[in-house]
This record gives sequence, C-alpha cells and structure tokens, in this order.
Amino acid sequence: MIKIALDAMGSDNAPAAEIEGAVLAAREFDYDILLVGKSDIIKKELEKHRPIPENISIHHAEEVIGMQEQPVISVRRKKQSSIVILANLAKEKKVDAIVSAGNTGAMVCAATLKCRLLPGIERAGIGLVMPTLKGAALMIDGGANIDAKPKHLLQYAIMGSAYSEYILNNRSPRVGLLNVGEEESKGTGSLKEAYILLENSGLNFIGNIEGRDLFVGDCDVIVCDGLVGNVALKVIESTAHVMMEMLKRALKSSFMARLSGLLGRKALYSLKSKMDYAEYGGAPLLGIDATCIIGHGSSNAKAIKNAIRVAGEEVAKSVNQHIVEKV
Amino acid sequence: MIKIALDAMGSDNAPAAEIEGAVLAAREFDYDILLVGKSDIIKKELEKHRPIPENISIHHAEEVIGMQEQPVISVRRKKQSSIVILANLAKEKKVDAIVSAGNTGAMVCAATLKCRLLPGIERAGIGLVMPTLKGAALMIDGGANIDAKPKHLLQYAIMGSAYSEYILNNRSPRVGLLNVGEEESKGTGSLKEAYILLENSGLNFIGNIEGRDLFVGDCDVIVCDGLVGNVALKVIESTAHVMMEMLKRALKSSFMARLSGLLGRKALYSLKSKMDYAEYGGAPLLGIDATCIIGHGSSNAKAIKNAIRVAGEEVAKSVNQHIVEKV
Repeated sequence: MIKIALDAMGSDNAPAAEIEGAVLAAREFDYDILLVGKSDIIKKELEKHRPIPENISIHHAEEVIGMQEQPVISVRRKKQSSIVILANLAKEKKVDAIVSAGNTGAMVCAATLKCRLLPGIERAGIGLVMPTLKGAALMIDGGANIDAKPKHLLQYAIMGSAYSEYILNNRSPRVGLLNVGEEESKGTGSLKEAYILLENSGLNFIGNIEGRDLFVGDCDVIVCDGLVGNVALKVIESTAHVMMEMLKRALKSSFMARLSGLLGRKALYSLKSKMDYAEYGGAPLLGIDATCIIGHGSSNAKAIKNAIRVAGEEVAKSVNQHIVEKV
Repeated sequence: MIKIALDAMGSDNAPAAEIEGAVLAAREFDYDILLVGKSDIIKKELEKHRPIPENISIHHAEEVIGMQEQPVISVRRKKQSSIVILANLAKEKKVDAIVSAGNTGAMVCAATLKCRLLPGIERAGIGLVMPTLKGAALMIDGGANIDAKPKHLLQYAIMGSAYSEYILNNRSPRVGLLNVGEEESKGTGSLKEAYILLENSGLNFIGNIEGRDLFVGDCDVIVCDGLVGNVALKVIESTAHVMMEMLKRALKSSFMARLSGLLGRKALYSLKSKMDYAEYGGAPLLGIDATCIIGHGSSNAKAIKNAIRVAGEEVAKSVNQHIVEKV
C-alpha cells in the first residue's frame, strides 16, 4: 500500500485542517497515512473524527517550523521539526510521498537538502496547477530557484510535461516559455537561450507565451524562472482576491444589487471554487528523488485531502521514473 | 497653451476611439490637440463630431505601424509613421507631450531613440497605474527594460516617486521593491543590491513587497524590472478577464443566478470599471526628455481622453523637472 507522510502542523489552520483532511483521505483512498507532528495534539484532534480509520498512524515530531521562520536557518536548527522529519522519512524511503502545507521555503530547503536530485536534474522546481478556461495548466517554477539558467528551464519543461501527461492527463502537453512577447527574439539572453534549447528538445514546444495567455488554456506547461513564477502566482491570488472584494462591495451598493447578491450567492461560491487551489491539492516539488507535495498555507481539509490524493497518484503513476526517462 | 500630439492610428479601435477621445478632451481641457495620422481618414472621422473644436488640428502621417510589427525594425523603416512622427515632434519640442495607444514596443523604441534621456537617468521605464483597495499605485517598469541593473531600479524608484507625488497626489510616496519575500536577504543578487541602494536613497523605502501586496494599497510605487513588471501586468489583466468570464458563466448556470445577474448587472459594470485601465488614462514612459503617455491597445474614447488629460497634467506639473531635481 502507498504510504504517505503528512505534516500535521503545517498550515495556518493546523492541525484541524490536516487531521480532518487526512481522515477524509484515509476513508476514501487505499493509502497508509502517517501524521507527523506533536503526538498529543494529533491524538486529541483525531478523537473528533471517530471511528478513526485504521490506515492512519502517528509519527511524533517535537518541533514545528513556523510560517514566518527563515527556511535555511530553521531547517538547520530544528532537526526534530515535522518538516525535517518528513524529509528524512522520504530520504530513507520509509514513505512513498510527503505532503506539507507549512512553510514552503523550509519544505523546499529540507526536501532538496535531504533527498537527492533525480539523475539529469540540476534544480528542483515547484509546479503550480492553475485553472484555465479549458482545464488545468501547470506553471513551473513557482519559486524554488530564482536564478534559473537556460538548462534549468529546459529541465522544468521536461518535468512539467511528465506531470502534465500522467497527472493532468494531457497526452502531448504543449509547453510554452513565459516571456514578454511571442517572437523568438524576445526576452533576456537567458530566455533566448532557453527558447533554442526547448525548440530542439523533442517536447511539444509552442514558443513564447505572455502573461495574458495563462488562463486561455492553449498551453499545458508554462515554463518560467522562480522569480517570475512566484510573482505571477501571488499576483493571480491577489487579483482574484481584490476582485472578489470589489464584487462584494459593488453588490452591497444598492438595493437591487443587494438582492442580486443574495440570489447569486451560489453562483459566486461556484466561481470562488473554480479559482480555488483547494481543488488541485497543492503544488508538486519536482526534480527530487521523492514525491513531495506542498500545500497552500491556507489549506482547508478538502485541500489537504486532495494534496494526499495527488501525492498518491504521483507515486502510482511513477511520475519521477517518467521524468528520468525523458531527461 | 499646452500642445499634445495624439497618434490617431494607434489603438485596436483606431481611428474612431482616438478621434472621439480627442474631441472629448478638446471640449473639456484647454489643450491644443494635434491628431497625427492619415489626414483623409482623420478628416472623415472628425465629421462625425460636429462642431469640431477649434483646438483640434491635423498633422499628416503617411504610414502606420501595426500592433504586430517588430518595434525596432518598424521604427527604422517607417519614418513617415504616426509613431515616428510623434517622437520627432517631441524631440523638436514642437509639442509638449505625445500620446499613443498603438504598438507599445515601437512607441518606447521611437521615443527613446529620438528624445534624449533626462540627465542622470540611464534607462526609460513604463509606469503602470493600477487600482488598489486604497487608491492608485504605480508599478515601474512595465516592460521598457527587461535587463534592469540595480541602479536602474533606483532610478525607477525616483521617477515613480515623482510621478506618484505630482500626478497621483501622494505626499511622501511609499516605495516597495517587488520580490519573492519580505526579508532583505530575498531575491537575486541584483535585487539585493537594489535593496541597499533604495535603503540609502532618501526615498520613503518600505522594503521588499510581494506579488500578493500589490492591491493592498500600502505601497505607492512598486519597483521591478521590465520582465517581472510585464508578466505581472498581463497576469493581472488575464486573471481579471478570466474571473469576469467565470462569473458570467456562473451567473448563467441557473434560473436564480440568471435573475441575479440581470439585477446585478449594474454592480458588475461598476466592478469592471474599477478594474478598468481606461480610468487611469494610460502609462507614462518616464525617463525621457519628453512627456509621453502610452495607452492600452484596446483603449476606448474615454481612455484616450484620460490619456490626454494625464499627459497635460504631467506637463503642467513639470514632472520631468522634479525627476531631474531628485536624481
């Protein structure tokens, strides 16, 4: 049975969201789920979900790395933290996959320090699954490596293609390079070099794409360096947030609008869930010799459950093996 | 009287949007407006707006640079294009400001080639005025210079501060550096150097900000290189667009939602106008010895009118002089 270790202390809503999500996942999927964190707290929280599924167990971790802690320093100092123990479990192959919705930087740092990189891969990358008008796309890198060289961008494209094919079910994933314009001549020297590498890669490379193309759905794998990807991710989140805020304000502005808001509440909620990372279950950290899923800090139980589901799928479909074959 | 030259052939809706916007501006403001483009087409379009204001005149330009044309090549080849003639008019000080909603790259290229840079400025930058939950902020650079050095980022901060103070009425504009995290240690080597320069600049520097902070409204001038700024801008536009699309679909999904959509139409329109660049009248190209406003390609008449208004304000408030004093 696939064994997945979950950081029980990670998210902003920890441990409640984690424990509930783990229980939901344990009931729905045939995975062994290992909850890593302070055992007394986990036990107490588990009591709320009787009967506790038999495929859930606890692995004690004395320390917790907080959201605001400096990644490298905290990983070095807190050897008994749930995140470091998670990485060690993966390194020692005691579990098949690890999942955390905690400090992203610390998780990337611990996983890349402890687990080796896959053969042929020189930098790990965070894959961000995002909704488009026609299905889901993967953006890579979301911030693991902010100084990416052209060959790293090529490796991201290869890893992203494997993920897109086996997890998002795109048969021949279309790969685009995120740039300031569509012409081959666009961008920094590094982007121009990456363009040439991608063109000769044998991947289904469709050329440069622009920020405006992200949601169109004509590109399955969006390749960028970690700085651009990180800014893009956070800009998407904040644009969505500000629009929902403005919409709420607009809907309160008049009687008719208020009435409309009441009637349309369901439609608005369905909109929110479309833009909701919870559906996609978190971001895979690709390139390391382990399966690692990083959840959003504000994950709820559903997001945790989906993160566990995706981690299991990645293992079952041998995504890492496909990456190694393609490199 | 302030004299402003407008590219009549620029936008996707040219010349109708340009001519209508120019007529609206000519009626509302005490500016001399020079329409640059094919005179027969302009004359015909002007006929629709009788009585034609006396402060509108025409300057013939035989050629047009299309939206898809390669900037450097088209500026070099099409010497009789409206964009090149606009830049020449600014260079020869025959007008006080130039405005175009055409090919952004060509406009940046023509303006920086023809007009000199301001003393102390080494790279021009595009300023993007964006709505926040508390007023408007300026992001600079939106894509004029994709390989910005730390000193260029400092110059952007200075120019952005001047614009924010005199045009957006922020007394002591708060300057933030767009980065992947808030700590001083974050980002590429270039961003870390820029951080130190900004800290010692005498500007009201508030440190690094993240993509998620853009719309909060606690930062008035967001400094970034052109690659990041360009991606951010287009991601904002596409996120807003996809959300409106999903909202429309959600509102069509049931009878109650449809009814709600009908009732709430006004609220939705007011939302759209909040996110609407048209309110802000276009992006200033800062750093050149001329006043230059670049409108959005999909500008309507209102956006053109506002772009002309902002161009006039920049001249009236001597923004360039303030930049030179601050450098």
